[in-house]
Amino acid sequence: MSILVVGSVAFDTIATPSGRVQDLLGGSATYFSLAASYFTDVRVVAVVGEDFSAEQESVLKKRGVDTRGIEHAKGKTFRWGGQYMENLNEAKTDFTELNVFEKFQPRIPDAYKDSKFLFLGNIHPVLQSAVRRTMDGVRMTGGDTMNFWIQGAPKDLAETLKGVDILLINDGEAKMLAGERNLPRAAHKVLAMGPKALVIKHGEYGATIFFREGAFGIGKHPFRAPALPIEEVKDPTGAGDSFAGGFMGYIASQEEINREVLKRALFYGGVMGSFAVERFGTERLQSLTRDEIEARFQVFRELTHLE
Amino acid sequence: MSILVVGSVAFDTIATPSGRVQDLLGGSATYFSLAASYFTDVRVVAVVGEDFSAEQESVLKKRGVDTRGIEHAKGKTFRWGGQYMENLNEAKTDFTELNVFEKFQPRIPDAYKDSKFLFLGNIHPVLQSAVRRTMDGVRMTGGDTMNFWIQGAPKDLAETLKGVDILLINDGEAKMLAGERNLPRAAHKVLAMGPKALVIKHGEYGATIFFREGAFGIGKHPFRAPALPIEEVKDPTGAGDSFAGGFMGYIASQEEINREVLKRALFYGGVMGSFAVERFGTERLQSLTRDEIEARFQVFRELTHLE
Repeated sequence: MSILVVGSVAFDTIATPSGRVQDLLGGSATYFSLAASYFTDVRVVAVVGEDFSAEQESVLKKRGVDTRGIEHAKGKTFRWGGQYMENLNEAKTDFTELNVFEKFQPRIPDAYKDSKFLFLGNIHPVLQSAVRRTMDGVRMTGGDTMNFWIQGAPKDLAETLKGVDILLINDGEAKMLAGERNLPRAAHKVLAMGPKALVIKHGEYGATIFFREGAFGIGKHPFRAPALPIEEVKDPTGAGDSFAGGFMGYIASQEEINREVLKRALFYGGVMGSFAVERFGTERLQSLTRDEIEARFQVFRELTHLE
Repeated sequence: MSILVVGSVAFDTIATPSGRVQDLLGGSATYFSLAASYFTDVRVVAVVGEDFSAEQESVLKKRGVDTRGIEHAKGKTFRWGGQYMENLNEAKTDFTELNVFEKFQPRIPDAYKDSKFLFLGNIHPVLQSAVRRTMDGVRMTGGDTMNFWIQGAPKDLAETLKGVDILLINDGEAKMLAGERNLPRAAHKVLAMGPKALVIKHGEYGATIFFREGAFGIGKHPFRAPALPIEEVKDPTGAGDSFAGGFMGYIASQEEINREVLKRALFYGGVMGSFAVERFGTERLQSLTRDEIEARFQVFRELTHLE
């Protein structure tokens, strides 16, 4: 079933120990769309500037992503520059030029309104809530956020969380959002804010999904998917959004939402994140095959599977 | 089959957010012995001072641990004081009084010489090597070390590593030992120093075992066991030694050493570590049942198991 993602499209300038690239196509909606496109139909709502070329849009179109919801505004596309040096898990931001993204007001095309799955990428929680209200017929809503909104717009974020079924954030964000340093305790506090399930991403250590009791008609025991130990991390940018794309995309491709589907989704999230970091930008996500994805899924499964 | 452990017995003074305790029985050999005692016969070589009471020794004896190798020397027992505050994964050392441990020269009782498994706890690598040479008939040797020896006695440690089949260290130690920040690359460098397998402990994220190609007649693909997300960590002291005790103890209890046994051992390591941190000191490890251990093993297995 179709999934609608709202988020950013950006040009990234990135330095890592493996090299430096400039104005590479990126943004949360881009990574999410590409990753999810291997599982289901994807529709994207975002804003770009006059410097966004047909060639860049074709990266998404080639993967079958519906780009009619990308608004072309006057001005320049959102730009971000950052570097990953010693610690590949954490980016140091060099610059952020919001440009057309500053006044972004997501508009959902009528053709998107029958989407059954919604992903609220990391944008201002007020915009996330507005989109969520427009899409009140969806079966499941996933969401992302970050420290910037947790600290800067806590009330707006609290409102957003009431409309999110599954929140996907990392360890640091979960602890900050809950005001609690113990991870499972933090998870329970976040679940009390609204989401039925919480996916906490641990970077190279995988991810854990925590459930509100009775959510999705399943038990409350958490589930953890490992990540593949990767020797060559070229560029961690977009790993989290690619994770979300694999996770939500797989769920949207299934008939039912049950514990086993959510478990497998967590593995597919890790699989797509692991591909994303192997090359700069979205390169690796542009040319995968479903066979490659399944092969890595099996490697991930084998990684922790007891007979 | 019997396992011989050489390490420290100490009195620990510990402060955590859950409280403060003084002169609690601890030390690497103590935690290791108690954890391993649920799987196999354990023999311990360590040194204590005149302040070590029969009551304290009985903690080990009650678990069937053979304590004839504990040397009673003149002076005081090794004392360590530390606190875990914000970050429960890392201890801040308040004081270290080596006392009788400073001149520790491990002596292996004749009755111990037929031990088939050996664990070299975290002591000076020169002592580890000396013990290893004495026990040249063992089937498998496990070993531990720490930053202090990696930086302070690299040549001695290199010699020790040649005689260790499986090294168990944490992420930071592996990276420091290899001089390499990428974890799988660090693992390969450490394996090139001697061990057939390397267990890297990730604290609350579990542990990964890396294999030298062809080691134990099995493939080289790593295996990862998750840790249980624990809500109530009372005292992390001894978690690593308890992990090692569960890991080595389970291996020693099996007929064969193969991939499946090593995988299960990694889970049992995590299980014993998770019990250890639930109470201060060794309290939880003193009174477990095999049923409790199996039940938690199943929880750990379920945590990442796909149908």
